[in-house]
Amino acid sequence: MRRRDFIRTGTFTGLVAGAGGIGGAGDPLAAIVGGPARRTAAGPVRLSSNENPLGISPAAKDALVEAVVLSNRYPADQHRALVGKLAAAHEVAENQVVLGTGSAEVLQMAVQAFAAPRAKLVMAEPTYEAVTNYQRTEAYELIRVPLTSGHEHDLDRMREVAESSGHPALVYLCNPNNPTATITPSAAIDAWIADAPEHVFFLSDEAYIEYVEDERLWSSLPWIGSKRNVLVVRTFSKIYGLAGLRIGYGIAHPDTAARLSDFASRNNINQLAIAAAGASFRDEALMEKSRKVNRQSREMVEATLGELGLEHMPTQANFLMHRINGDLATYRGRMAEAGFLVGRDFPPMLDWNRLSFGLPEDMGRFCDTLRGFRGKGWI
Amino acid sequence: MRRRDFIRTGTFTGLVAGAGGIGGAGDPLAAIVGGPARRTAAGPVRLSSNENPLGISPAAKDALVEAVVLSNRYPADQHRALVGKLAAAHEVAENQVVLGTGSAEVLQMAVQAFAAPRAKLVMAEPTYEAVTNYQRTEAYELIRVPLTSGHEHDLDRMREVAESSGHPALVYLCNPNNPTATITPSAAIDAWIADAPEHVFFLSDEAYIEYVEDERLWSSLPWIGSKRNVLVVRTFSKIYGLAGLRIGYGIAHPDTAARLSDFASRNNINQLAIAAAGASFRDEALMEKSRKVNRQSREMVEATLGELGLEHMPTQANFLMHRINGDLATYRGRMAEAGFLVGRDFPPMLDWNRLSFGLPEDMGRFCDTLRGFRGKGWI
Repeated sequence: MRRRDFIRTGTFTGLVAGAGGIGGAGDPLAAIVGGPARRTAAGPVRLSSNENPLGISPAAKDALVEAVVLSNRYPADQHRALVGKLAAAHEVAENQVVLGTGSAEVLQMAVQAFAAPRAKLVMAEPTYEAVTNYQRTEAYELIRVPLTSGHEHDLDRMREVAESSGHPALVYLCNPNNPTATITPSAAIDAWIADAPEHVFFLSDEAYIEYVEDERLWSSLPWIGSKRNVLVVRTFSKIYGLAGLRIGYGIAHPDTAARLSDFASRNNINQLAIAAAGASFRDEALMEKSRKVNRQSREMVEATLGELGLEHMPTQANFLMHRINGDLATYRGRMAEAGFLVGRDFPPMLDWNRLSFGLPEDMGRFCDTLRGFRGKGWI
Repeated sequence: MRRRDFIRTGTFTGLVAGAGGIGGAGDPLAAIVGGPARRTAAGPVRLSSNENPLGISPAAKDALVEAVVLSNRYPADQHRALVGKLAAAHEVAENQVVLGTGSAEVLQMAVQAFAAPRAKLVMAEPTYEAVTNYQRTEAYELIRVPLTSGHEHDLDRMREVAESSGHPALVYLCNPNNPTATITPSAAIDAWIADAPEHVFFLSDEAYIEYVEDERLWSSLPWIGSKRNVLVVRTFSKIYGLAGLRIGYGIAHPDTAARLSDFASRNNINQLAIAAAGASFRDEALMEKSRKVNRQSREMVEATLGELGLEHMPTQANFLMHRINGDLATYRGRMAEAGFLVGRDFPPMLDWNRLSFGLPEDMGRFCDTLRGFRGKGWI
């Protein structure tokens, strides 16, 4: 997070309860937080991190509060119970499911587990940057392949790169892709997986799959029964609204899951995250409400962008990429002044912004703000 | 956790709320959980994982509940605020503090960050096994040095091993040591740190330091200002009673902290863990109560072991090691039957048990159970 964004969140005082040293007199942050730019207690509207604006579901909250009594107990039993629930729902064995502190930890396990001398990491540009960050400490040769002009993964080029030698290749496929919210048709991915040599490993990040309406996209899950070289990653951070609780999971062949597990942090998942995830998983009412609200906000934003003639990409997720006709940092700063946090840099697309969909009422105000920016010649 | 222990915890049904597949009709676990051996809803008494039996403090619970509204938001701001609070309290810079999902993740970061071709990992036998597990995926040569007859780290031997070549050596010092609860005098550790070459890295695990009454033990924290090769690890799992929330931290020279951070999982810490930790940190009333209850339970257990003539080690933590005069697995099984979960295997000490101190009333029942075992000739 950039400093400009950070100081505007307004949420960080008081949230660490008893934090006498933060925001108090003499604290260097106090001047920033308490300064004239400070917003209301509720803080700015966060349209920056693809979070679910509906928040935790009532059922998940109840489960979480009931589990507070377990705060002093290590989570092994509850962890195992949630793995059992996920495995049963996905019709796989328990030893095929690996929990992580968000899908982020599962991605980290994969990057670490499949590192090897002269291994390649093949990924789109732009795509979600966690994998890029994790590979910095590993031996990978990083190969970035630009999306096609249709905003799809360039599978032909990725395949050429991944299979051009016998060295191991970890292929990261984020579908829908973050930050573009665009999809790559699964039929083409399946065709590659079916034919790929074993040294090509597919890391299929399906963080946003529950939002997808386009029937050309489906999960890579069916492959894990027969292929050791496929890992599907899911998260509770998006449709389930639990980004702050840090829980996600991977599903793979038992041998692959075992390799990953060696890289999990001991007792990684928080008791309350387990409780909330268990109560949220496949809660159809929650999922339908999330999709409905997302659709309302998306349609409002798309209409406004159309009205303003600002190009945007087609979206199959809870965010979209749109042109801003100018410098991204300047745009972001002005949006922060107006009370909206918007997306970070995704090079090389520095004249586009990634906009997460908030609640419809907030998006109404956002659209008004965009129109105001146009009036000032800022976009 | 062994299966026998697991089936006795009795806590895993209902904790994953909405877990229709777990414990329900037709679930293979239901027969186990609902079988004749099932205990009360509260489950057996956990004296197996060095948890704080008092549970989360009221202030931490309030802070946590207040933070539930953040469950759908990524924790970067709150994370940074807690780092600021910890840094201020320890009188270090913010870039010297690294949060982990329990101290377990900080230990993992260290093991991964300092791995190198032909690096050595030098540790006591027995000691806490997390570091041993993490090194399995790395290039370390693992060298285990038995504790002295006085149950201290054998620093002379560890030093000889660590410095016998110019290869990097990661030296793990758990003080008080888990599972023995015994201490190694800090003066001797300081003498080594003062003279050690830079290729020897000290990983100082101070998980239990808040329980220590013996004045011969103090923190290694003063070294981090001048030494890049010292990392001090602390946890909220023990004296603060937050083991289930998974939060701990490391403190080191800024350069060392930066090296570690590369291995942290992205957005690693749960919002609610941050809130509870912030509200618990240096809460003197909570700490004093934890110490007092621990002392009561310890004195009761020591008296009973003395009465039964069962040898035990001196303890400076919230657990102790005692002889069981028999086979550990058998003993553990019988304790589980009686409603008590007790410690796991710590080879090579397989005729000793690690006993965590629970609430005094539970320890009273435990002591009666021990006497009953003696009556049956089991110990």
